[in-house]
Amino acid sequence: MSKPIDFYFDFSSPYGYFASTCIEELAAKYGRTVKWHPLLLGAVFKTTGAAPLPLVPLKGEYALHDFERSARFYGIRYRKPSEFPLSTQAAARAMLWIRKQYGEEKAVAFCKAVYNAYFVDDLHIGRPEILAQIAFGLGLDAARVIDGSNDAEIKEQLREDVDAAMKRGVFGSPFMLVDGEPFWGFDRFAQLEAFLKNGTI
Amino acid sequence: MSKPIDFYFDFSSPYGYFASTCIEELAAKYGRTVKWHPLLLGAVFKTTGAAPLPLVPLKGEYALHDFERSARFYGIRYRKPSEFPLSTQAAARAMLWIRKQYGEEKAVAFCKAVYNAYFVDDLHIGRPEILAQIAFGLGLDAARVIDGSNDAEIKEQLREDVDAAMKRGVFGSPFMLVDGEPFWGFDRFAQLEAFLKNGTI
Repeated sequence: MSKPIDFYFDFSSPYGYFASTCIEELAAKYGRTVKWHPLLLGAVFKTTGAAPLPLVPLKGEYALHDFERSARFYGIRYRKPSEFPLSTQAAARAMLWIRKQYGEEKAVAFCKAVYNAYFVDDLHIGRPEILAQIAFGLGLDAARVIDGSNDAEIKEQLREDVDAAMKRGVFGSPFMLVDGEPFWGFDRFAQLEAFLKNGTI
Repeated sequence: MSKPIDFYFDFSSPYGYFASTCIEELAAKYGRTVKWHPLLLGAVFKTTGAAPLPLVPLKGEYALHDFERSARFYGIRYRKPSEFPLSTQAAARAMLWIRKQYGEEKAVAFCKAVYNAYFVDDLHIGRPEILAQIAFGLGLDAARVIDGSNDAEIKEQLREDVDAAMKRGVFGSPFMLVDGEPFWGFDRFAQLEAFLKNGTI
């Protein structure tokens, strides 16, 4: 049995969202599953000294253009959210709590719904009431999700998960690890596929 | 007659080198030529606040791996230079002087030879004697190239070229501009080709 693909992403990352729309299909094609890991780029950037893309001079303006163009190129629904970027801590905590309470399948459905809410429907996914609405739409107990995602245990787990990711070399979104091989960026999916197919590049 | 593709690159950039190996073929396929613009990423990074890739925590280590893997993936000869990154000011100035004295064709031949010396033969392209050797190999008067590239006029021209590039939004290597449309990175060649083909994405 092949190991799952570790898929790291930040809920505020357009390239992470693009990756989320097709990583399961790619994995399944090569007999793999996907383990979803929400990341907090804000915490990671403290280590790497990086800044959120839209805030970097020259690069930021280009990035906004590239998000839209890449979405068109790959045929992915996307629009720039009104509030961008934003804090994704609440969404990441909610995802971890849902995984703990309801299992992986519901957690992944929640990830996809959060990405869709943010990058298609332009909802402010930093707000608890929006996360509650998303949870409700998945048939979950919305009030319990919001309460549960504030558990000290969940907060600690997210901190540990982000630290563990950085210890594995993860520094951006999306970031994929397959049998120890690291791939950063939606633009490395061709190389990721070659590796899944041949076990080497 | 279609306008040329403006191709910006730093001689110390592996992704710039990868792009240099195939951009002319891609351009020719769509009836375009290529205008080569040596860039000084050091100067650009003062504006964007970026650091040379190999020096960024986590990202640097990944980048070194990605250079080698991407080279294998695309079938491009590459080895990590012993001295990396290094100052590319002397090489950029020499290229501008060669263009002025001998024309575009010799200048482009010099660019390719410099990239090859650095990323295939592991020669220190920051040293005048290496640049002289490269110029000599192209049938140029090596002593005149080294002298000429120290002209105040050439130094000023390089500064102006880098400033003009940033004013056009250029912030990395490789960077391509086609009819005003910006593409950053060797990993945007698929989108660059789609744009050349269809005039839009």
